[in-house]
Amino acid sequence: MSRETLSFPPTSIPPLEPYLPLTSPSPSSKPHLTLTYATSLDASLSLAPGVRTTLSGPYSKSMTHYLRTRHNAILVGCTTALVDNPALNSRLGSITSLDQQPRPIILDPKGRWDFTEDSQVIRLAAEFKGKGPWVVTKRGGETKERGELLERVGGKFLVLETGEDGRFKWGDVLSVLGEQGVRSVMVEGGGEVINSLLIDPENRLVDSVIITIAPTWLGKGGVVVSPSRQQGQTSQLKLRDVSWQPHGEDVVLCGRILRS
Amino acid sequence: MSRETLSFPPTSIPPLEPYLPLTSPSPSSKPHLTLTYATSLDASLSLAPGVRTTLSGPYSKSMTHYLRTRHNAILVGCTTALVDNPALNSRLGSITSLDQQPRPIILDPKGRWDFTEDSQVIRLAAEFKGKGPWVVTKRGGETKERGELLERVGGKFLVLETGEDGRFKWGDVLSVLGEQGVRSVMVEGGGEVINSLLIDPENRLVDSVIITIAPTWLGKGGVVVSPSRQQGQTSQLKLRDVSWQPHGEDVVLCGRILRS
Ligand SMILES: NC(=O)c1ccc[n+]([C@@H]2O[C@H](COP(=O)([O-])OP(=O)(O)OC[C@H]3O[C@@H](n4cnc5c(N)ncnc54)[C@H](OP(=O)(O)O)[C@@H]3O)[C@@H](O)[C@H]2O)c1
Ligand SMILES: NC(=O)c1ccc[n+]([C@@H]2O[C@H](COP(=O)([O-])OP(=O)(O)OC[C@H]3O[C@@H](n4cnc5c(N)ncnc54)[C@H](OP(=O)(O)O)[C@@H]3O)[C@@H](O)[C@H]2O)c1
Repeated sequence: MSRETLSFPPTSIPPLEPYLPLTSPSPSSKPHLTLTYATSLDASLSLAPGVRTTLSGPYSKSMTHYLRTRHNAILVGCTTALVDNPALNSRLGSITSLDQQPRPIILDPKGRWDFTEDSQVIRLAAEFKGKGPWVVTKRGGETKERGELLERVGGKFLVLETGEDGRFKWGDVLSVLGEQGVRSVMVEGGGEVINSLLIDPENRLVDSVIITIAPTWLGKGGVVVSPSRQQGQTSQLKLRDVSWQPHGEDVVLCGRILRS
Repeated sequence: MSRETLSFPPTSIPPLEPYLPLTSPSPSSKPHLTLTYATSLDASLSLAPGVRTTLSGPYSKSMTHYLRTRHNAILVGCTTALVDNPALNSRLGSITSLDQQPRPIILDPKGRWDFTEDSQVIRLAAEFKGKGPWVVTKRGGETKERGELLERVGGKFLVLETGEDGRFKWGDVLSVLGEQGVRSVMVEGGGEVINSLLIDPENRLVDSVIITIAPTWLGKGGVVVSPSRQQGQTSQLKLRDVSWQPHGEDVVLCGRILRS
């Protein structure tokens, strides 16, 4: 994986600004949640879980690294952590201190993410190139050994109850992050995490979406973003305040979820 | 269904022009095929077959009616004909003669499209607001009565062999249309028709694509555009010569299929 530093042109910032968290948010409100991912024309994030799939071009990559500096935290599901071994830091050349890096958050109720010293997130935290990750798990998902490894690099386990479906409630996840001082979180994937956030627009958890669409079809069988419909649902989940920004071969879509 | 006439701003034509059929094509070549549809962010054409779903805004609608005037024919699958009862003509106010209308083509191997005098396509042809449809069917898919109705409005059956899968080969469909003098065809849907055209990019049948994307999710269970992968396929089907044109809430993507 290339480790070069990246730059993001200042002229590209103003079109994104309306969708980004406030720089001085009210400490009482829930953390600002930005949903961001790159997708194919057939709504796939990757050819299959575990198949690293390059979808979008260099603009989208540097935008992602810029967006990471504008959020306190960046959240992924444990399958993404497991199969992609992602860095979850920002490689913008303009970063001068660890404060500017987002906190990696991994949703891992059962402790499936088998990280070691060699996992990218852990290694980068040990090198002060990223913050130590917080792993959100349920009781029993943590082990002493892994807890020690996390603490050594400035991370920790956050233990949370799951519902009968084995899933955390998103409201609970955001509350716990809020209690830890997180004012903004960028959710990057994968499919299950994104779909679960899109299922119930009335929960008002998603503040803005920033989606890169690449002009390609991955074909049936990919990791698809398409929320399950709720019983009897025949309506669409629409965006408002929409902005489309073509960049190279890709387009970046910004918007907010329209509540009915 | 609204029957108002539409207009398409002349300034919107130049960005589309590179993707449109030549006005004087060589008569020997296969007909130019433009694939065009409107989709949600989760790659759906409609909430379900038979559920008319308004996805895109007024620009996309008038663009479609403009594109129809730039093609000799407009092709849909019989499910679309059956469930949507579409008009398949152009309602651009600038149209002065029937010559400017596209020929409706319906792929209907088994004769499932149960049209009558009241079907939109038939009624509009009877009123000289559209051409009489050509229904591509296999032997046995035609009936004398329906053939007479088609002929009364200037249409006809075109009988073609299907393969063992009950499907026409796209090469055969285009050959038969070419023999009938069709030099350009716009394929509008539905999902099965589009997916089957996207399955084999090496067949070089699709000359350009013009896709409108609306900023909305329809949720799982819609009519999805996502080609089946061929045995062992792990590659993407990419577009080249890509252009993104934001219009209102939607974006229009034009491109050509990249051959490997
Ligand atoms: N294109 C992009 O922008 C992008 C971005 C990120 C990832 N990806 C791709 O996405 C793929 C992985 O996606 P995926 O859908 O398979 O998995 P995922 O969303 O990364 O992870 C799913 C897992 O996270 C846990 N989880 C998710 N929501 C939870 C909740 N509310 N409460 C508790 N646990 C929760 C569950 O773990 P348990 O099953 O253990 O309970 C679940 O199985 C990879 O191929 C990756 O490359 C692409
Ligand atoms: N958003 C848009 O732009 C748009 C445009 C058009 C349609 N739509 C929507 O799409 C939905 C219908 O899509 P759909 O996928 O269900 O059906 P469809 O593609 O309209 O029609 C499929 C049928 O056409 C026949 N067919 C297709 N390819 C063939 C081939 N190569 N050879 C022979 N026959 C062929 C087959 O008929 P037999 O099964 O009888 O053999 C097949 O079942 C509707 O809800 C409609 O509203 C949306």
